[in-house]
Amino acid sequence: KKQTAFSLSERLGLDEFLSLNVWRAALGELLGTAVLVFMFDTIVISTLETDVKMPNLILSILLAIIIAILLLAVDPVSGGHINPIVSFSAGLIGLISMSRAIIYIIAQCAGGVLGALALKAVVSSNIERTFSLAGCTLTVIAPGPEGPVTKGLEAAQAFWLEAFCSFVFLFASIWILFDHRQRNSIGMIRVFSIIGIVLGLLVFVSTTVTATKGYAGAGMNPARCFGAAVVRGGHLWEGHWIFWAGPAVACLAFYVYTLIIPDDHFHAEGYK
Amino acid sequence: KKQTAFSLSERLGLDEFLSLNVWRAALGELLGTAVLVFMFDTIVISTLETDVKMPNLILSILLAIIIAILLLAVDPVSGGHINPIVSFSAGLIGLISMSRAIIYIIAQCAGGVLGALALKAVVSSNIERTFSLAGCTLTVIAPGPEGPVTKGLEAAQAFWLEAFCSFVFLFASIWILFDHRQRNSIGMIRVFSIIGIVLGLLVFVSTTVTATKGYAGAGMNPARCFGAAVVRGGHLWEGHWIFWAGPAVACLAFYVYTLIIPDDHFHAEGYK
Amino acid sequence: KKQTAFSLSERLGLDEFLSLNVWRAALGELLGTAVLVFMFDTIVISTLETDVKMPNLILSILLAIIIAILLLAVDPVSGGHINPIVSFSAGLIGLISMSRAIIYIIAQCAGGVLGALALKAVVSSNIERTFSLAGCTLTVIAPGPEGPVTKGLEAAQAFWLEAFCSFVFLFASIWILFDHRQRNSIGMIRVFSIIGIVLGLLVFVSTTVTATKGYAGAGMNPARCFGAAVVRGGHLWEGHWIFWAGPAVACLAFYVYTLIIPDDHFHAEGYK
Amino acid sequence: KKQTAFSLSERLGLDEFLSLNVWRAALGELLGTAVLVFMFDTIVISTLETDVKMPNLILSILLAIIIAILLLAVDPVSGGHINPIVSFSAGLIGLISMSRAIIYIIAQCAGGVLGALALKAVVSSNIERTFSLAGCTLTVIAPGPEGPVTKGLEAAQAFWLEAFCSFVFLFASIWILFDHRQRNSIGMIRVFSIIGIVLGLLVFVSTTVTATKGYAGAGMNPARCFGAAVVRGGHLWEGHWIFWAGPAVACLAFYVYTLIIPDDHFHAEGYK
Repeated sequence: KKQTAFSLSERLGLDEFLSLNVWRAALGELLGTAVLVFMFDTIVISTLETDVKMPNLILSILLAIIIAILLLAVDPVSGGHINPIVSFSAGLIGLISMSRAIIYIIAQCAGGVLGALALKAVVSSNIERTFSLAGCTLTVIAPGPEGPVTKGLEAAQAFWLEAFCSFVFLFASIWILFDHRQRNSIGMIRVFSIIGIVLGLLVFVSTTVTATKGYAGAGMNPARCFGAAVVRGGHLWEGHWIFWAGPAVACLAFYVYTLIIPDDHFHAEGYK
Repeated sequence: KKQTAFSLSERLGLDEFLSLNVWRAALGELLGTAVLVFMFDTIVISTLETDVKMPNLILSILLAIIIAILLLAVDPVSGGHINPIVSFSAGLIGLISMSRAIIYIIAQCAGGVLGALALKAVVSSNIERTFSLAGCTLTVIAPGPEGPVTKGLEAAQAFWLEAFCSFVFLFASIWILFDHRQRNSIGMIRVFSIIGIVLGLLVFVSTTVTATKGYAGAGMNPARCFGAAVVRGGHLWEGHWIFWAGPAVACLAFYVYTLIIPDDHFHAEGYK
Repeated sequence: KKQTAFSLSERLGLDEFLSLNVWRAALGELLGTAVLVFMFDTIVISTLETDVKMPNLILSILLAIIIAILLLAVDPVSGGHINPIVSFSAGLIGLISMSRAIIYIIAQCAGGVLGALALKAVVSSNIERTFSLAGCTLTVIAPGPEGPVTKGLEAAQAFWLEAFCSFVFLFASIWILFDHRQRNSIGMIRVFSIIGIVLGLLVFVSTTVTATKGYAGAGMNPARCFGAAVVRGGHLWEGHWIFWAGPAVACLAFYVYTLIIPDDHFHAEGYK
Repeated sequence: KKQTAFSLSERLGLDEFLSLNVWRAALGELLGTAVLVFMFDTIVISTLETDVKMPNLILSILLAIIIAILLLAVDPVSGGHINPIVSFSAGLIGLISMSRAIIYIIAQCAGGVLGALALKAVVSSNIERTFSLAGCTLTVIAPGPEGPVTKGLEAAQAFWLEAFCSFVFLFASIWILFDHRQRNSIGMIRVFSIIGIVLGLLVFVSTTVTATKGYAGAGMNPARCFGAAVVRGGHLWEGHWIFWAGPAVACLAFYVYTLIIPDDHFHAEGYK
């Protein structure tokens, strides 16, 4: 087994809590997540505000671009996570120590709060109320003919959607980031573009498949949801555990998957 | 510390004021900024004129293309700045001497004026009045049911938006231009495309999130704002300091960030 | 000075008038320009005919593609000019001899006439009358409530627009074609795509900024204007000198710019 | 002269009629053309059916993508023709023997019939009648106020349009496929994309410029026209010779052009 090559203490890496370089790298994660949250949420608001035919298509394309660029910016500083899902599964698989993963996740949550604060500073109060700072919610309070109506997903539906989307995210894109052979042969920019495109597609699919207007898609980033919830509060805390538990289940499932698949890449002969 | 390797006199580089090559390179900056201002402002006017669903999306895409191409054109001549923010932070970080940065900024301001003059020469006077030569304004005078109404942002909101957008611009794109390791591995065209895309996205986001019709987005280029203000004058001078102070704060924050993050790029092992 | 390395006779290259290879290459220019004029003008007509929101945006995108592909096709035969502006500035800068530039320009004009003839053969007579074979005009005769109305630009406004757009065309795109260092590092396809995009953007900008419906944008290609004027005649000859004089001024300005800027490319150190 | 290096018997290559490999390759051409005709015609019908502003623009974009993908698929089997125009000019220029060209053209015609049959099997009889299986026609029977009206092009106009478009197709895109130096330096995917884009543009241009509603654009592929005519019959046979004679003239003109242009690629020095 590949992971047993590392001792338990190496896997935990408690000494990294005292390493200045880890905390410096965490600053990159913090700022990266702050910018991500600010841009992500303003894009969600901007496109849902506008009266276009397919707002979620435009939304998804812009998200894909933003994520690709920010991963590129943070990559040399910290390895390019800006998402607790990525840091947690990187820790599980043994790519980074668990201590570093925890430090990164703390920094990402702080960044999420910072981004949500920056958004609150520039957004008009009317938009803030309507969109709840584009936080992660299951229910949306929409104006109905007989007063505001609460529409949304049930907790179970939301949990599985969150877990499933997070697993697809890890399975279809993050594996390239973790597999240095693929990463080198494909090239940094394309890898980050693929990650961005996969996340954009998942947001596009999750917004339309549920057929629930106002639901802004699967969260797939607990730090983003945490930031908006801290700054805006209120109903954003309802069901907030789903945005942590869903991705956590996905990370564990992805870890089991990496243990099962063969170590060597499969190469067919190809016709000559 | 990396920057202390240079002596103070090297950092200031006062002798560059006497170097003909620096002034020649500044000509590239001047013309580049002039073309940028002319194209940028005509695109702003063209798209806001047209009756489309999402003028600011088209606006942002075209701006991204324009900026990428102009940076490519000016890069071999002067290093591809055409923006006082880039020159100032390049000077702070020690990429170029402070003297060269100042010469570039002067050239960029002159270019901004030139571009605004070229625009004034071809634009019809009616459009010039409506759009104020697409200059950087906080307030827009819009026709209301009871005479013209002044709509806009408050100074504090605009200042933070300007500072935050400029920081995101530096954090998410300009760092690649300054980090020669990334620049070489990514390739010139892609670097400039990323810079263009980031600026386009920031304009898109800043125009919609403030929910103020007519506000053409964060300036993020003091030279562009300066050119329009000189040629058009009037209310464009109100709050003009914001378009200089905001980016200046962002440059200083970015400088502090580059001092804190680890010098070496982070490289995970990759799972084997 | 770089150009004085060549003797005057080399710069003139009168012997090239007797070289069969130059005339063979000119055939490529002739056919390339003919196809360009045919495609360009049919696209102008097709998009202005159709009832869409932003005809000039679609027009500009299609033009960008057409120009990039045709430059690619003609490049190995003659160097890929198909535009008197490119040939004239290539001759001025010393990339090709002045004789070759003149032969190319003659071939381009012949090609322009051929393309306009081919267009006349397939276009319906009604469309021919409405759009004047999509020739370069300052004035457009539009149906008004009280008989046809002549709308358009004044000669001075049109001249500066023509000169400015031609200069931007040279400054922002053609310099890559002329600078073999950039050309090699960027790659043939991207260079021609950039040229196409810049021309498309200039047409987009020049059509809207003047706020004159029906005006098809700056010519930026005297051979195209010449072809339509010869075949269609009539009011296309009015102000035809502008489509030659404007670009000529731009070529001279670009030549002066290339003399002033430093010979060596600027390379910053990059922050370490 | 380059072609005289081959003997006449080599150019004819009559022994290839007995080569199993040529017939195997022809199977690739047959299937490729069948899929092309089926996809092409369903796209034509789908877009003309739909109530959009610019059906021919969407049509052209989809055609460009389809053609690029099919050429990519057939290329390793047979060289990627799926069009008698390409096979005939490849035979003329000496890229393949004339025998192979004839075998390919026969296979392409059989493929055209197969594709038209497949389309007839799935399409509703009402649509089949309205669109004539999207075959190549000069005249369209449209419902008028006083019974069905026959609208269309005159034979001479259609012949020149067919010949001119086929020549542009060869001149602007197919030359890259034939010139192995360009093909290698540009890359397979880009070459096929360019061919697809050029064909899409020509269809776009030829549909609108003739100002005849229902005319589906220049054929530019005799095998496609042949298939629809065999399966549907009737008025599709009127003027069917034009879709063979027009391209044939274009192929001969292109052959003459390749004989005249210089053998060596033109390389300018670049300004230093």
